[in-house]
Amino acid sequence: MKRPVTLFTGQWADLPLETLAEKVGQWGFDGLELACWGDHFDVHRALTEPAYIQSRRDILNRHNLACYAISNHLVGQAVCDLIDTRHQEILPTHIWGDSDPEGVRQRAANEMMDTARSAAAFGVEQVNGFTGSSIWHLLYSFPPNNFADIERGYEDFARRWNPIIDVFEREGVRFGLEVHPTEIAYDFVTTRKALDAIDNRPGFGMNLDPSHFIHQFLDPASFIEEFSARIYHVHIKDSKRRLDGRRSILGSHLNFGEALRGWDFVSPGHGDVDFESLFRALNRIGYKGPLSIEWEDSGVDREWGAQDALAFIRRIDFTPSSAAFDAAFRTQ
Amino acid sequence: MKRPVTLFTGQWADLPLETLAEKVGQWGFDGLELACWGDHFDVHRALTEPAYIQSRRDILNRHNLACYAISNHLVGQAVCDLIDTRHQEILPTHIWGDSDPEGVRQRAANEMMDTARSAAAFGVEQVNGFTGSSIWHLLYSFPPNNFADIERGYEDFARRWNPIIDVFEREGVRFGLEVHPTEIAYDFVTTRKALDAIDNRPGFGMNLDPSHFIHQFLDPASFIEEFSARIYHVHIKDSKRRLDGRRSILGSHLNFGEALRGWDFVSPGHGDVDFESLFRALNRIGYKGPLSIEWEDSGVDREWGAQDALAFIRRIDFTPSSAAFDAAFRTQ
Amino acid sequence: MKRPVTLFTGQWADLPLETLAEKVGQWGFDGLELACWGDHFDVHRALTEPAYIQSRRDILNRHNLACYAISNHLVGQAVCDLIDTRHQEILPTHIWGDSDPEGVRQRAANEMMDTARSAAAFGVEQVNGFTGSSIWHLLYSFPPNNFADIERGYEDFARRWNPIIDVFEREGVRFGLEVHPTEIAYDFVTTRKALDAIDNRPGFGMNLDPSHFIHQFLDPASFIEEFSARIYHVHIKDSKRRLDGRRSILGSHLNFGEALRGWDFVSPGHGDVDFESLFRALNRIGYKGPLSIEWEDSGVDREWGAQDALAFIRRIDFTPSSAAFDAAFRTQ
Amino acid sequence: MKRPVTLFTGQWADLPLETLAEKVGQWGFDGLELACWGDHFDVHRALTEPAYIQSRRDILNRHNLACYAISNHLVGQAVCDLIDTRHQEILPTHIWGDSDPEGVRQRAANEMMDTARSAAAFGVEQVNGFTGSSIWHLLYSFPPNNFADIERGYEDFARRWNPIIDVFEREGVRFGLEVHPTEIAYDFVTTRKALDAIDNRPGFGMNLDPSHFIHQFLDPASFIEEFSARIYHVHIKDSKRRLDGRRSILGSHLNFGEALRGWDFVSPGHGDVDFESLFRALNRIGYKGPLSIEWEDSGVDREWGAQDALAFIRRIDFTPSSAAFDAAFRTQ
Amino acid sequence: MKRPVTLFTGQWADLPLETLAEKVGQWGFDGLELACWGDHFDVHRALTEPAYIQSRRDILNRHNLACYAISNHLVGQAVCDLIDTRHQEILPTHIWGDSDPEGVRQRAANEMMDTARSAAAFGVEQVNGFTGSSIWHLLYSFPPNNFADIERGYEDFARRWNPIIDVFEREGVRFGLEVHPTEIAYDFVTTRKALDAIDNRPGFGMNLDPSHFIHQFLDPASFIEEFSARIYHVHIKDSKRRLDGRRSILGSHLNFGEALRGWDFVSPGHGDVDFESLFRALNRIGYKGPLSIEWEDSGVDREWGAQDALAFIRRIDFTPSSAAFDAAFRTQ
Amino acid sequence: MKRPVTLFTGQWADLPLETLAEKVGQWGFDGLELACWGDHFDVHRALTEPAYIQSRRDILNRHNLACYAISNHLVGQAVCDLIDTRHQEILPTHIWGDSDPEGVRQRAANEMMDTARSAAAFGVEQVNGFTGSSIWHLLYSFPPNNFADIERGYEDFARRWNPIIDVFEREGVRFGLEVHPTEIAYDFVTTRKALDAIDNRPGFGMNLDPSHFIHQFLDPASFIEEFSARIYHVHIKDSKRRLDGRRSILGSHLNFGEALRGWDFVSPGHGDVDFESLFRALNRIGYKGPLSIEWEDSGVDREWGAQDALAFIRRIDFTPSSAAFDAAFRTQ
Repeated sequence: MKRPVTLFTGQWADLPLETLAEKVGQWGFDGLELACWGDHFDVHRALTEPAYIQSRRDILNRHNLACYAISNHLVGQAVCDLIDTRHQEILPTHIWGDSDPEGVRQRAANEMMDTARSAAAFGVEQVNGFTGSSIWHLLYSFPPNNFADIERGYEDFARRWNPIIDVFEREGVRFGLEVHPTEIAYDFVTTRKALDAIDNRPGFGMNLDPSHFIHQFLDPASFIEEFSARIYHVHIKDSKRRLDGRRSILGSHLNFGEALRGWDFVSPGHGDVDFESLFRALNRIGYKGPLSIEWEDSGVDREWGAQDALAFIRRIDFTPSSAAFDAAFRTQ
Repeated sequence: MKRPVTLFTGQWADLPLETLAEKVGQWGFDGLELACWGDHFDVHRALTEPAYIQSRRDILNRHNLACYAISNHLVGQAVCDLIDTRHQEILPTHIWGDSDPEGVRQRAANEMMDTARSAAAFGVEQVNGFTGSSIWHLLYSFPPNNFADIERGYEDFARRWNPIIDVFEREGVRFGLEVHPTEIAYDFVTTRKALDAIDNRPGFGMNLDPSHFIHQFLDPASFIEEFSARIYHVHIKDSKRRLDGRRSILGSHLNFGEALRGWDFVSPGHGDVDFESLFRALNRIGYKGPLSIEWEDSGVDREWGAQDALAFIRRIDFTPSSAAFDAAFRTQ
Repeated sequence: MKRPVTLFTGQWADLPLETLAEKVGQWGFDGLELACWGDHFDVHRALTEPAYIQSRRDILNRHNLACYAISNHLVGQAVCDLIDTRHQEILPTHIWGDSDPEGVRQRAANEMMDTARSAAAFGVEQVNGFTGSSIWHLLYSFPPNNFADIERGYEDFARRWNPIIDVFEREGVRFGLEVHPTEIAYDFVTTRKALDAIDNRPGFGMNLDPSHFIHQFLDPASFIEEFSARIYHVHIKDSKRRLDGRRSILGSHLNFGEALRGWDFVSPGHGDVDFESLFRALNRIGYKGPLSIEWEDSGVDREWGAQDALAFIRRIDFTPSSAAFDAAFRTQ
Repeated sequence: MKRPVTLFTGQWADLPLETLAEKVGQWGFDGLELACWGDHFDVHRALTEPAYIQSRRDILNRHNLACYAISNHLVGQAVCDLIDTRHQEILPTHIWGDSDPEGVRQRAANEMMDTARSAAAFGVEQVNGFTGSSIWHLLYSFPPNNFADIERGYEDFARRWNPIIDVFEREGVRFGLEVHPTEIAYDFVTTRKALDAIDNRPGFGMNLDPSHFIHQFLDPASFIEEFSARIYHVHIKDSKRRLDGRRSILGSHLNFGEALRGWDFVSPGHGDVDFESLFRALNRIGYKGPLSIEWEDSGVDREWGAQDALAFIRRIDFTPSSAAFDAAFRTQ
Repeated sequence: MKRPVTLFTGQWADLPLETLAEKVGQWGFDGLELACWGDHFDVHRALTEPAYIQSRRDILNRHNLACYAISNHLVGQAVCDLIDTRHQEILPTHIWGDSDPEGVRQRAANEMMDTARSAAAFGVEQVNGFTGSSIWHLLYSFPPNNFADIERGYEDFARRWNPIIDVFEREGVRFGLEVHPTEIAYDFVTTRKALDAIDNRPGFGMNLDPSHFIHQFLDPASFIEEFSARIYHVHIKDSKRRLDGRRSILGSHLNFGEALRGWDFVSPGHGDVDFESLFRALNRIGYKGPLSIEWEDSGVDREWGAQDALAFIRRIDFTPSSAAFDAAFRTQ
Repeated sequence: MKRPVTLFTGQWADLPLETLAEKVGQWGFDGLELACWGDHFDVHRALTEPAYIQSRRDILNRHNLACYAISNHLVGQAVCDLIDTRHQEILPTHIWGDSDPEGVRQRAANEMMDTARSAAAFGVEQVNGFTGSSIWHLLYSFPPNNFADIERGYEDFARRWNPIIDVFEREGVRFGLEVHPTEIAYDFVTTRKALDAIDNRPGFGMNLDPSHFIHQFLDPASFIEEFSARIYHVHIKDSKRRLDGRRSILGSHLNFGEALRGWDFVSPGHGDVDFESLFRALNRIGYKGPLSIEWEDSGVDREWGAQDALAFIRRIDFTPSSAAFDAAFRTQ
């Protein structure tokens, strides 16, 4: 049994879904993870226009593509975040509204509930995304943090997301947080604390994306083993450290792709993610879901890259064994 | 010629200067770098009470201690920062005032000017400290930064600090920014940009503290070589990476000293700073100023640690050579 | 000239030879290294049933498969071992007999002589296998070893194997010990001592299997260079160290494939064997024999794995050069 | 508060205790960990001769030496071991007796109970030692282990040691197993299983000796953190890996000190143990017991070495901090 | 846009161009970089025989091969070198002449001018080659160098090469020095000094060959970034360090291919060159010229190797991106 | 038994012996290795002036200094070298003479014979030095070497040095070549070949100086083990690699001490020499001669450095063990 390989459409939202699906189908992917932006998957039309969902299905079917998950990172980000002008750039107008931070956060929360409902309507049981965080800006504790404030950040997360997850669980859909800087959980410690804050309820798990672990020096395979019951979806994305004593691992306030950054996202297989160990860990926990390529590499043409990534995954995603070691040595 | 070894008093502000100076003198230090908090060095009394400065001198003299620099990190931090409740904890009441952010920033800027004046009055030509930063919270670009905002952060720094440096230059005192996360400059790239923003004027240089380089994977010796003309003061402080695939280099929103952090400050010689290379670089640029131990190690008793640090520096701060290599081989 | 690639059938003994040969032929292998267990190669039938050998040849020929070596690891293991219940599981009934240890050892020795004879009858000049060891259990010297006992272990090996090798040399067949933990030779030092014990006679050489070197931190290419005259056969098998400070290189008494082991066997090219260096060393010593894939990887499906391994070897087993470097620069 | 530094007398049993204590006292040690062999501490005389215990105390007092623990490794080893001739070399005659393995094991078990009683009589609450193991010889699973046999090994350990620990707990003495190859627990996995087998009862903990972790590539500081409640005593001993691609980490059946071994014990501070991390971990768990130097280094004179080790520990065993980080920054 | 892949013919000069071109065309290369030795490209015939150039073009065209550069390493080497008997082996008779060193150097210089003229006549704008060096033998400063002599070596280079580059610039052809031991520039420092010596004039740049950087521990990607304006041509060649504590990085006066050397040239992708970083650096500077495989590997058959190298480059030479990162996230 | 620590006077030849001896005696050294230049040890006066030798002894005795070896590196260098102007700088006038290369070489050879004679007269049995080499300039084989020329270099060495060693052996003095770039032997391979060339005669051995191994990536301890019978004298000197991808290990034709070199000599204990392993290897071969500090570090004041080096050696030169491991565990 081979796991399906899908493409996450978030970085291709400038293309109409029809155009993208045609390319992706020809490249040989098994499916798409639809982003809830661009024209790829519109949460509201899915809930209100009877024909909309079928139109999406038709496009996918025409190109032999399945859909195992939809993703709404941008709206999810606004649920817990301290809102600033950057959110206006990535949020739909009806959520940004009058720009009042608390209003933005509440509208974003409602939209995430609708995202669960629209996924259910679409027949998809997985929604991936971000949570935002009210305490991210306290990352480096200077001026010295009052660490009770940090605890309040996890409580804020629980207060805002528990009602959202109520809807998810009611709809039979699971949320997969992409553990990532700027989210409530971005590493082992913060994932433990975030899960604790919501009593580790089953409606909330992870969309594992190993690329965000590399610049933190974290091991994705160990993460899979520790949080095995909450690995709900997997992104295939890579990252490379480029440290030479002059480039900071913190990124120097430089944009992705700048030569002087200490690390950058790269096409899968071109970076420091140990996919061999990652796939062995996924095999051990029995993960059977899609491997969804989230393609970002500012140094490579994306069409070349998406195909290169697919070929890479096809070559190394091995089938797990079913037999015991040395069983063939036994004489009986 | 051996460089003097001083102790930065910032982490000892709970002790009266008299008590501290007695200990430090007995331990064998050459001097103190006085913090402008606790009762160590009061900027206002230095400017307004004729006897105050002499009272500081008397304490130092009684214990055979020199003073090459005073430091005002906490107030400097507020000059560019977005102000939050954490600043209230570290700022004097007269600067915090009514807590209006812009008011706090302006009062802090004025205080830094007074710090220069008080240093001059005290006969000290070096003030160390922080600058704060209006863009630190944009460190990880998600939601994606508008990078013009980053440029505006450097402009804001220049706008706020140029008038301060005017006073420094007028007073014949130099400011030494401790390159450090949360400041306008925390690595090579941001130091270049910060210096560019103020036209690399001589009143503004660096208090090199290698401990802030380790978790960023930066090489302090290379920094000394690149910015040789602006290395005005040196802190001796160490840091250790404790990465095991489960601990994040970003710190996990955990306080210093917590077992699960990916790095921590440690007593000099107990961490990853390559002091051998650092001292060779200082020798190459001809740095003759103090080596000022800023002692922070949450796992070690500070009195044991300060003495251990002094012994460490005494053992490895070697005198540079004055003769050419192999000169003794020549027959004439 | 490319070296033939064969599959060692030991881990496939649950399949009838006919079934296996069909698969292996379709996958594109050049031949099989037949195990003397399962129904793959029966030493006694080969010596007593006139049609048996032809029946094996017929199967191989039907699928375009050659045979360069047969292997009898399980019986060989019993020749020097201290016999315990584990041997009963892997030995044929006629060798286990009444379970008296010395009887088992002698019957195993005789069977190895017959293995040489049957190989000769089959037209194959190479038999691979194990020797066992009477001193393996003394590996960690506590309670402290009497090291004269260790010497006696090598003498015991020579006493038991010299008569076996007499038969091998008479039959024109060579024995290839797979250097491996639990054998009389498992590393450089013990190989030197084992070869010395039998005066380095030509009938006894090595089946080099690099996978057993990895968890010992040994370099297979150096082994090839030191024992170049005794490299009689080569297994292609890989192994990966998975050390993280909590997993022991000694294996923790855990079965292969367990997540907490410090190392494990993996499909060729997925582990720590440096095949590039290994092939260059084989080229340098002029090894022209088969590359025999011994496939073991508890995390991968074996049919996927065998084909993946074959493709891997085809891609990297390069032809050695025949021309001198820079010869084309000469003007004459 | 500095932890006392003691010397374990096991490697000095050729010297009378009086002679040794005089040397050790002069070298400046704080105490001795007495071995129950040589004439250092005789379990039977301690239980039967009223003046014996006072005679030991007198010797110690004369040289200003304390005693925090006694050790009976050699007898403990025989409790679970498969007995062979090597045990005869290290066991007292009354335990070896007629050499019948089960008899030896039972007499050894009784002796360990008496060791607890004699420690109590001596006023010492800690006994260190070994347990032996009935499954050590199954370390490398070839012929393939029946892993149910491995489980039976842990059960055998529990069956034999529970009655011994009953006595320990009754006497108010704790047993400290030195986690070590050839014992029931030698790494993280086997320690977990051994503790589980006896329901993690408090009478049984560990004498942490980091030297046995190095050749297994295990991290002693992580061990201290995982088993913090069971770290009852600490040996200071070091080990060095000497891998060069030709030397096996398994030891090649060579005696300690041989040049071709892949690792060897060395004087503390001369090897690969990270004592800095180890001491920080001990500080974190609040370990206040002795640091007991077990000195073994076949390349160094032991008297030079013991003093070098003491100086090393005195230099690096730092006092933990009692204050919070950055506390001195607060304005109130 | 993919860069063309060519084969440098220098190591194939024993084959007539017709024979070589047929092979190379069949293997799928895009072109040839013709060596000015063997019968591949004769500088004099190109300048004097009207039909010669067309004959070379015809051969190339017949096999669909382009030519972007010609190379004259062997003659270039003689321009600055101290001449010894080794030069006789690699120089045409008319340049060696009477063997008087200064005469050889001047005839070589003239020949390099003619090489520029013949390239122009051939319609090729790039000539690669060597410069030689009068100071190479002073590499290790013992007996201690007079470093003024080193400066004179750069002046000698400028004096001899400026007139040659005059011709190049007149002809519209660029010279590409292959930075390489024994040349005036072989690393970063010497490249800076060599370029300074000729005022960094545009007619003189580099043929970047990363294989010569590996044994010097230099990073080719950093070189590309520092000298971006002078990267005129790229050789694809690889090298591997084989250090084991007994093999010297200096080469031991052993010929390439000897087992005991500390490093050796290997087929591209089989060594230590980081081609991923190299191609990203070439993308960043906008290099659009050929990737010319200079194939040398004394352990591999050259025909197998050339095809393996071509396949390697085709697989990893990725197209650069034209879009900004995260652009698809924007809502407008 | 501690080995004596001496100072090699070569880098102090600008000081009169009397001045130097006074300093060195006060610093606590055990002796001097006298250089045959400056006024430290004059070969001719030792052979011709009856009182000269006594005058040297008197100076040494006055400061409690022994002498175990004299050294004549500079003259030895000229015996095989191709002579250039650099030799004039380091040779006495009577050897440079009319500058005819062959004359210089022969006069240098005679002087080395006299050095043996003067050592014998002085009662010293060890002379250290260089041999020079006629083939050093062929180090990098381009233009490609005729490797028969390399062989002729070893023959030239044997032809010139055999008569010198005849004198050494006659006088009961041994020559110790400092294996070093520019000498006939500078690594393992060339040492083997040089010793072969003179039939490994006992009069010719090595002055081991580990600093010359570091930039070649050679292991001094392995060298000691391979050439154990020819380790006649030991220099304590250190070297540090400073590779960062931009600095070449070849030295860039930069003088020692320049910031951009890829490696440099440093004070013992400040570099990459593993003195722990080196001393263990010396212990294993039973070396009992002096440890002679040859102090060179262009970044450190030499008087500070010599004392620092002495303290370093005193701290780590441990006495070897005389007892067997675990001997104290035996019950009999």
